[in-house]
Amino acid sequence: MKDYHKLLSDEISLDPPDWEEMRTLGHKMIDDMTDHLQNIRQEPSWRKIPGETKESLKMNLPQEPQAITDIYEEFRQRILPYPSGNIHPRFWAWVQGTGTPFGMLAEMLAAGMNPNTALGEHSAMYVERQVLSWCKEMMNYPQSSSGILVSGGSMANITALMVARNHQTGKDVRKEGVRAATGNMTLYCSAETHSCVEKAVEVMGIGSNSLRKIEVDNHYRIRTDELERAIKLDIGAGNTPFCLIGNAGTVNTGAIDPLEELLSISRKYRLWFHIDGAFGALAKMVPEYSDELGPTEEADSVAFDLHKWMYMPFEVGCVLIKDSAAHREAFASEPNYLMNHERGLAAGPDPMGNYGLELSRGFKALKVWMSLKEHGIRKYAAAIRQNIAQAFYLGELIEREARLELLTPVSMNVVCFRYKRNDVSNEGLNKLNKEIVMSLQEDGIASPSSTILDGKYAIRVANTNHRSRKEDFDELVRETVRMGDKLLT
Amino acid sequence: MKDYHKLLSDEISLDPPDWEEMRTLGHKMIDDMTDHLQNIRQEPSWRKIPGETKESLKMNLPQEPQAITDIYEEFRQRILPYPSGNIHPRFWAWVQGTGTPFGMLAEMLAAGMNPNTALGEHSAMYVERQVLSWCKEMMNYPQSSSGILVSGGSMANITALMVARNHQTGKDVRKEGVRAATGNMTLYCSAETHSCVEKAVEVMGIGSNSLRKIEVDNHYRIRTDELERAIKLDIGAGNTPFCLIGNAGTVNTGAIDPLEELLSISRKYRLWFHIDGAFGALAKMVPEYSDELGPTEEADSVAFDLHKWMYMPFEVGCVLIKDSAAHREAFASEPNYLMNHERGLAAGPDPMGNYGLELSRGFKALKVWMSLKEHGIRKYAAAIRQNIAQAFYLGELIEREARLELLTPVSMNVVCFRYKRNDVSNEGLNKLNKEIVMSLQEDGIASPSSTILDGKYAIRVANTNHRSRKEDFDELVRETVRMGDKLLT
Repeated sequence: MKDYHKLLSDEISLDPPDWEEMRTLGHKMIDDMTDHLQNIRQEPSWRKIPGETKESLKMNLPQEPQAITDIYEEFRQRILPYPSGNIHPRFWAWVQGTGTPFGMLAEMLAAGMNPNTALGEHSAMYVERQVLSWCKEMMNYPQSSSGILVSGGSMANITALMVARNHQTGKDVRKEGVRAATGNMTLYCSAETHSCVEKAVEVMGIGSNSLRKIEVDNHYRIRTDELERAIKLDIGAGNTPFCLIGNAGTVNTGAIDPLEELLSISRKYRLWFHIDGAFGALAKMVPEYSDELGPTEEADSVAFDLHKWMYMPFEVGCVLIKDSAAHREAFASEPNYLMNHERGLAAGPDPMGNYGLELSRGFKALKVWMSLKEHGIRKYAAAIRQNIAQAFYLGELIEREARLELLTPVSMNVVCFRYKRNDVSNEGLNKLNKEIVMSLQEDGIASPSSTILDGKYAIRVANTNHRSRKEDFDELVRETVRMGDKLLT
Repeated sequence: MKDYHKLLSDEISLDPPDWEEMRTLGHKMIDDMTDHLQNIRQEPSWRKIPGETKESLKMNLPQEPQAITDIYEEFRQRILPYPSGNIHPRFWAWVQGTGTPFGMLAEMLAAGMNPNTALGEHSAMYVERQVLSWCKEMMNYPQSSSGILVSGGSMANITALMVARNHQTGKDVRKEGVRAATGNMTLYCSAETHSCVEKAVEVMGIGSNSLRKIEVDNHYRIRTDELERAIKLDIGAGNTPFCLIGNAGTVNTGAIDPLEELLSISRKYRLWFHIDGAFGALAKMVPEYSDELGPTEEADSVAFDLHKWMYMPFEVGCVLIKDSAAHREAFASEPNYLMNHERGLAAGPDPMGNYGLELSRGFKALKVWMSLKEHGIRKYAAAIRQNIAQAFYLGELIEREARLELLTPVSMNVVCFRYKRNDVSNEGLNKLNKEIVMSLQEDGIASPSSTILDGKYAIRVANTNHRSRKEDFDELVRETVRMGDKLLT
């Protein structure tokens, strides 16, 4: 770079040429988004994206600046009207939370401050510590345990399983890799476990063949007799069983594995006991579930999402780990360019990079901090309890309706059912119910998702929606029946 | 859950009881944050957090709701005044971008819409595709390549190396694990490579012993003779060399490895050629660097961050992979509950979960989409070029100043130097320069960070700051000299 002086004669920045225009636009956005959220119930639950709108999102890389008001107008016309819909009262697809207006504002503040919450002495680091401390309280984990905020359940599970992998063999897996273990390193979970656990096992270099997916009972809970048999087989084969994963709420049906039994099996065979509680772990705060989910407290680690059943904006998940030393040993390093100093910016708490995979970390903690203060934990517990009550209510509606079949008893917040007529084959019902789901969505009525249970296509309602009301489930049932009837004629 | 009917008699939601109060507060936040950003130059570059403020961030889990205006006031008093400072014109620590006001507003819109940009037919999925297409244009990657937005460099590198690991052995590593490979799976990079690469190798179960850290020349670039020697040694030992990582801008000094040579070595030994270009890859858009960084286009994959040298708010990084089939094969799965449908919400583009580790993915793409339109790519290229020019300017200032020593020639945007006096030992200088760095930060003058080069403590300026001006570097030099003089008397 030779003539650099010339380049510095007229310096630029990316700050707005007109701050007042930016401010005015910010105000307009606040008004629009507030209106949007306040009136969301009047919107369809989903809206098809027109072809020309999709086409308009296939432009070449912009070369020159465009006016910010024009860009925002494009957003309003092409992006805002076609959301996935998880902020809508009748969205119950997959497992996605709803978000809140205050959470939205918190994200703006976080992006304005724009810290990298990975290391250093600055407020974001302390807000995250505060929030992690609150998460421990929520889960009744000791304050001596460690944790980290991550993007969601996948990362939370990977993080915990990494710690288990590195800690349990007694070998230096970080340096030597999984080859250091005797035989294959084997893990155990139910066949209903979320696919992210399998992905984690693949990521870790162990290979999914070493993940033993134990069959489930007729309530979709792991069969502990089969589990013990599998562990013994692996020991006999010279493998290294190291980890057991229990489900606090399976993705398909919301089933809770028999955690107390899993706990004692894990202790008997010295396995790391991890709980995938992506949404279900939080139901521990609901009186009716505190016993069944109680063993979560005794586990070695637990993963759960705050953007699911705590209704915060994407992304924010959490993993807690009892043995903070094991947690740190799995990830810590201090290269020269990250040296901790006694004072100044490079002082500060133990860097978060020592507890996870990332070194670029936004200020996720702020929305958690602000939201928990906004509502207080009791209200969250009440909202979660309400979602469960609504699921039971929906289950009752379905059982009362002759043309609907509940495919498994409701156990928490997930309801799997289908439209049924005895003169239609199972294959026919599968096609029909898929058509019902697509039509409910296309007509903007409601957004359930689907799964397959025992070869049956299930309309699946996973309720982690603080905007849903009883009447929304009435409508879902009414419309499902109407749609099924219509499609059959 | 027995008495659920009772719980539904008086349903709650987490929406605000008073929408107008929320709206008004949103307006106030816009005003405050706009003022904050507009006047950031008048703030100190860093400010010590008072003990009582830290203490106030050690409260018990909130049980009951607090007024949103009170919560915001707490934010204003306890959090906002103590940022890490990377939005300040004289912040050059580690490698962190600056953010922009429009980027901040984009994050609010994204959190308001609150989609999970993982799967489904909704606008966010198309915005991400658009943005990825633009990233390919920026890097001159073919549109047939694939990519994904991630949290940052660490995740981008892990993602690419996972693909390399799974693709290169010809074995089914996803199922069988790294044990399936013949001998150890070995990777190659320079000793100056970022620690996240080592972490990625640990995560993948390969073990860091299999990462060959090749020594560097006196410009901190990998020695290709040593590299070839190491590869041959591994082949001779029956190992499986599978990947070569080149640096487009090392973290310590901004050095660019001899990429052309690395490319041909990777072809000769059939290694996956990955570029860690966390910040440096973007300098390809600067005329003076397009040749040296040109081979990035020929690599198998490249990782780079948009929150670094594209100045966008945290978090957003990107990885691009030439062989989209290999990319997909490394991650894809379709469990029952994620079935793609022909129509409705569950239709839509190939789920992003098939290209990475995460299934919870916020709407990172929106800030990229809005920012690239706001400025156009030419302005980004100009800002990057300006940062490099400023680094050369700083290098010149240092060379002109007898009491300062440039520790390695400036090659891009990183400058490593120290205060020096011949009558002080190296150990003494190390202590002194560390004290200078801490004092510059404590006094709110500037925030460089540090590293160690050849046993010498270096004051390290990594310039990815669109707010910095020539005068800021004048001040840094002046104050460093003043501080050094003062500390020595």
